[in-house]
Amino acid sequence: MIIDCHGHYTTAPAAVGRWRDEQIAAVAADPAFGGGDAGPEVDDAEIRKTIESAQLRAQRQRGIDLTLFSPRASWMGHHIGNAATSLHWTRLQNEMIRRVCDLFPTSFAPVCQLPQSPGVPIDASVAELERCVVEMEFVGCNVNPDPSGGLWTGPPLWDDYWAPLWDKLCELDVPAMIHVSTSVNQNLHTTSSHYLAADTTAFMQALTSGFMSGFPGLRWIIPHGGGAVPYHWGRLVGMAADKGWDFDAVLEHVYFDTCVYHQRGVDLLVDVVPHENILFGSEMIGAVRGIDPATGRHYDDTRFYLDNAGLDDAAERAIFSGNARRVFPRLADRLPPEEDTP
Amino acid sequence: MIIDCHGHYTTAPAAVGRWRDEQIAAVAADPAFGGGDAGPEVDDAEIRKTIESAQLRAQRQRGIDLTLFSPRASWMGHHIGNAATSLHWTRLQNEMIRRVCDLFPTSFAPVCQLPQSPGVPIDASVAELERCVVEMEFVGCNVNPDPSGGLWTGPPLWDDYWAPLWDKLCELDVPAMIHVSTSVNQNLHTTSSHYLAADTTAFMQALTSGFMSGFPGLRWIIPHGGGAVPYHWGRLVGMAADKGWDFDAVLEHVYFDTCVYHQRGVDLLVDVVPHENILFGSEMIGAVRGIDPATGRHYDDTRFYLDNAGLDDAAERAIFSGNARRVFPRLADRLPPEEDTP
Repeated sequence: MIIDCHGHYTTAPAAVGRWRDEQIAAVAADPAFGGGDAGPEVDDAEIRKTIESAQLRAQRQRGIDLTLFSPRASWMGHHIGNAATSLHWTRLQNEMIRRVCDLFPTSFAPVCQLPQSPGVPIDASVAELERCVVEMEFVGCNVNPDPSGGLWTGPPLWDDYWAPLWDKLCELDVPAMIHVSTSVNQNLHTTSSHYLAADTTAFMQALTSGFMSGFPGLRWIIPHGGGAVPYHWGRLVGMAADKGWDFDAVLEHVYFDTCVYHQRGVDLLVDVVPHENILFGSEMIGAVRGIDPATGRHYDDTRFYLDNAGLDDAAERAIFSGNARRVFPRLADRLPPEEDTP
Repeated sequence: MIIDCHGHYTTAPAAVGRWRDEQIAAVAADPAFGGGDAGPEVDDAEIRKTIESAQLRAQRQRGIDLTLFSPRASWMGHHIGNAATSLHWTRLQNEMIRRVCDLFPTSFAPVCQLPQSPGVPIDASVAELERCVVEMEFVGCNVNPDPSGGLWTGPPLWDDYWAPLWDKLCELDVPAMIHVSTSVNQNLHTTSSHYLAADTTAFMQALTSGFMSGFPGLRWIIPHGGGAVPYHWGRLVGMAADKGWDFDAVLEHVYFDTCVYHQRGVDLLVDVVPHENILFGSEMIGAVRGIDPATGRHYDDTRFYLDNAGLDDAAERAIFSGNARRVFPRLADRLPPEEDTP
């Protein structure tokens, strides 16, 4: 069985984008704008079409059984508007993900975004997380470590600001993928500079602070193969030894996905990072859409790289599904027992 | 012959740090403070001691012949004070580097910092670059892509703001290492999150803009093994193909050092990046000071990793010295001809 821990609904119906554009225009005109109407009208047939023609087709071609599916990351846009517009947009987006998972219950499991907003307490995010997990059977969430959108003006992840969210994640026993959204800083290109920097930054905030030891059971997935972390593993291990930071303790909480889009990068990842800390992911139909002329495969076909990484059976089983089952225990309800799957 | 393209005077005499602390206190008390007195009193014996007991000792142990030596990067502090204090501090620091190179002329070649200051035109940096190269025989410089210190509030490197500096580098035929200084943003740890993000960001600013094609002969060295770039080579090549960015054109201008502190990272670097774009570097006695218990070597002993990377003679020659000679042509005056060196 192959579980992809990192998929976004990047092909959402056009009406969703249009609704959001109108909401953004409304809150730009009136900063106190309350959120908007009931949401875009999208029928099930349209959702089916956008999934079957894109994400699901690619899943079948690549032999991926289940994707942990969340709203499009670059659309989260926590820096836009106010707390009310962020909340309303987020609830609509999460409900759309719920509908995708209802239509394709064996192929997708729902992961939510949170209604973060710069300078606003984290309470609304805690409440929306609880709604999604308890009422709608979501299995995880995405947390934006920089809701300012590339300005990095908010509190670091070790700050008490975040504690209620970490507590709720532990209580509900769901993990968080630490994933930024669009950059509004012209210095930082969104899906390269900003995404990869944020991944490294999140890891370093955990490492330098040691704060995660105060939240037993807290689990993060660092996307995009951990940003620069595996490539600079020696630098960070050495720095931790110099400074007295507990590197191994961080690895009790932090996992890396495999969204690295060339063979040598994936080889490095699986050589350097303990296999129990790696979750298969592709973020397919995401930052890179094309086919690598050298392989004839899509750049984001990370299963291909893993199949060629020389992993033994135990490592393959762990990375492709076993680790995801551990990190996302709420998946158990919807999956056959591990020993019954190929 | 082995040339280390990336060394900083991290062991500068204590009087230098004290002088800077006093300057910082003075400009904090009076934002219009003019810069300070003539500078710290440091005699040659003290400089000799700080070099012979540290950088030079390690160079000899590791078989490194020559280091391109610049002021301590984390001390550049372009975000501190005003244009006058930045200029005065920078001139003193560059003159200190000149003294090191005069005392050890066969072991060090001088690379300058620039008196950057947020929101101030780049002219003072152009003038200091010219002074260092023309009057003091410097062979290169360090350019801080984020003089705001982790706030990223200034213009990107493709902005016209920087054009006079790129023109002067081309005219003088010297390269720039793109190297940030201390982060004042509590989200970004200086020598990990901030340094590595800045490396990736500089590369992406070149790639997304294509601006370097307007500056024939402009050469950058991206430090710390290129940040996240080699690990995410497939992502960035694929993204460039999607967007129509000219990846190969960037490689006519951009080089990577080898400051990656574990074997697997260096292996990836030399497997992925064309060998003509890699310059040996260690940034020794820098971000990581300790010894890796797995190898018994200092983490920053990058020559050890390169010696074990399976390079052929031509690649070793290029990475250890040939490429540095091409990128830093002003080194020619002080070096024996390439064909006469081992």
